[in-house]
Amino acid sequence: LTITIALDAMGGDFGPSVVVPASAAALEQERDLSLILVGDPALVEAAMSECRLPRPGGRWVVRPASQQVEMDELPSAALRSKKDSSMRVAIDLVKVGTADACVSAGNTGALMAMARFVLKTLPGIDRPAIVSALPASGGHTHMLDLGANVGAGAEQLCQFAVMGSVLAQCVDGIASPSVGLLNIGAEEIKGNEQIKASHRLLTESDLNYAGFIEGDAIFRGQIDVVVCDGFVGNVALKTGEGIAKMFGERIREEFERTSFTRLAGAFAMPVLRRVRARMDPRAYNGATLIGLRGVVLKSHGGADRVAFAHAIRRAASEVREGIPDRVREHLETKLAEQEAV
Amino acid sequence: LTITIALDAMGGDFGPSVVVPASAAALEQERDLSLILVGDPALVEAAMSECRLPRPGGRWVVRPASQQVEMDELPSAALRSKKDSSMRVAIDLVKVGTADACVSAGNTGALMAMARFVLKTLPGIDRPAIVSALPASGGHTHMLDLGANVGAGAEQLCQFAVMGSVLAQCVDGIASPSVGLLNIGAEEIKGNEQIKASHRLLTESDLNYAGFIEGDAIFRGQIDVVVCDGFVGNVALKTGEGIAKMFGERIREEFERTSFTRLAGAFAMPVLRRVRARMDPRAYNGATLIGLRGVVLKSHGGADRVAFAHAIRRAASEVREGIPDRVREHLETKLAEQEAV
Repeated sequence: LTITIALDAMGGDFGPSVVVPASAAALEQERDLSLILVGDPALVEAAMSECRLPRPGGRWVVRPASQQVEMDELPSAALRSKKDSSMRVAIDLVKVGTADACVSAGNTGALMAMARFVLKTLPGIDRPAIVSALPASGGHTHMLDLGANVGAGAEQLCQFAVMGSVLAQCVDGIASPSVGLLNIGAEEIKGNEQIKASHRLLTESDLNYAGFIEGDAIFRGQIDVVVCDGFVGNVALKTGEGIAKMFGERIREEFERTSFTRLAGAFAMPVLRRVRARMDPRAYNGATLIGLRGVVLKSHGGADRVAFAHAIRRAASEVREGIPDRVREHLETKLAEQEAV
Repeated sequence: LTITIALDAMGGDFGPSVVVPASAAALEQERDLSLILVGDPALVEAAMSECRLPRPGGRWVVRPASQQVEMDELPSAALRSKKDSSMRVAIDLVKVGTADACVSAGNTGALMAMARFVLKTLPGIDRPAIVSALPASGGHTHMLDLGANVGAGAEQLCQFAVMGSVLAQCVDGIASPSVGLLNIGAEEIKGNEQIKASHRLLTESDLNYAGFIEGDAIFRGQIDVVVCDGFVGNVALKTGEGIAKMFGERIREEFERTSFTRLAGAFAMPVLRRVRARMDPRAYNGATLIGLRGVVLKSHGGADRVAFAHAIRRAASEVREGIPDRVREHLETKLAEQEAV
């Protein structure tokens, strides 16, 4: 099982100093895994010696790439002119079968454009979406799109619903996953024209469509798949991160206020650590570009070692589960059924 | 200081049983306050006897209204045919000067349509926006629009920015509040066409424009005003509520797991209660329909007594601060400056 790691620019001041040790950690955790780090060999070696890691070889090789995609680069420009970038080479290696999956923490739009151009989309799918499993009461909720498309028409939202539903079937073994459409109210009159049109299409579909849901229902654990356009999904995701962080800070502040609260904090700490571990966004890092003929994962740009290693392991698990093939099979069955009607 | 309370349908199974005791609480807290409860007198009286409240009189009167606006009613239909609804009568009483402000927990779209039709918007403002102060590190952040407009063009987003900026000046006494435009990335290339066009307009404006911000920055306390369209804002707000609720549940679960954690919980409880009090969404209930020639507040549809009483008190405070007049003065100055150029 081979995964390519694209070493383009990440958000923040990260890059090889995060990705290289994260790769080492993932190799240790997954014994059948091999990694191809795609990027500037000098940078990779510098990061390796900084982290005192053994030199590459065997399950860990460096594949040079002469370019890198910047965070503020237009996807169309990157697609046209960055043919020897880490991202592009990493995806090309998946296309030719040298690798089984690709992980990147770089420019989302460029990753999406290159993956779509090189790997192509599955039958019936116009554009891939970014999907991730978010923590919810009693388990998780698959939410898409989290930022691959800044807008999405009614038809596209339905494609997201189909892909999310198939993913929940594959990953969670749910026979008929419930699908909710994110809106600003549960009443039929709410929402913009796109949302209303998508609502009509989903109501007529053979999906287990549960209707409109509001933002607070994402985490309630009653819906298996939440569908929205990439702008809304991305804002919701990051707002959630921000709230969780503020919550953590306030808890720390209150426990540090007096000597009594510090004592209480000493008692409470092991419990609060468990809460943090269960809510840790790092354990949810690694969002799938679903709808492609291949496994491509997007890591959070601000990922640390733990988070990036998690994204690599998630990619490995999707390869083992054969997610793209299973989604394709479901889509082909659906398309055949539609044609028969 | 007189406030009308519109007793139309609320979200959930609430209504007079929440609003009536909340009104009683607000009257007790604010000694210069008088309330006009607008709705079906039989329902109000039933709620009063259920809560064992004294009969109305003096600072607390009931104004009958023969209709009510339903939650799933189209705003345009409500505007046309519900001229004797609680909401409409409550707003009319503000228009004629009998009352200083109106509070409603009903259909947001209808409230917005009626308020705009009856009270009119301020000079230079096409449509009001819903604004609320959300908790942030070291204080709060004013965010708008939270759901009055399902979409907003570039020009409208700029009007929101102006109104939010003036509000932060009035409420917080900040000379030049910083304004951020909510987007899915901080880079210039990110976002849809509306967002990009709005970014250009804001960059040229005389506002203290801080550029694009992402969802997690709402709570970081570095931006005074966050601007977005109502769809995105509403989803972000409700997603935040959902996350905060899940966080609270997980903390409870973990403290109830074993006898040791229950003991730790007993120590930690006073501290966690303070955290909860600081993060309590009820203490942030009551969002202003800004941009109107009058004070209209929207309470969360699922508000309880504490939350609804808070919305009433917030309306009272906006009347005392003379918010609409101060926003109008700022807007007129701005318009005069623009004309002079």
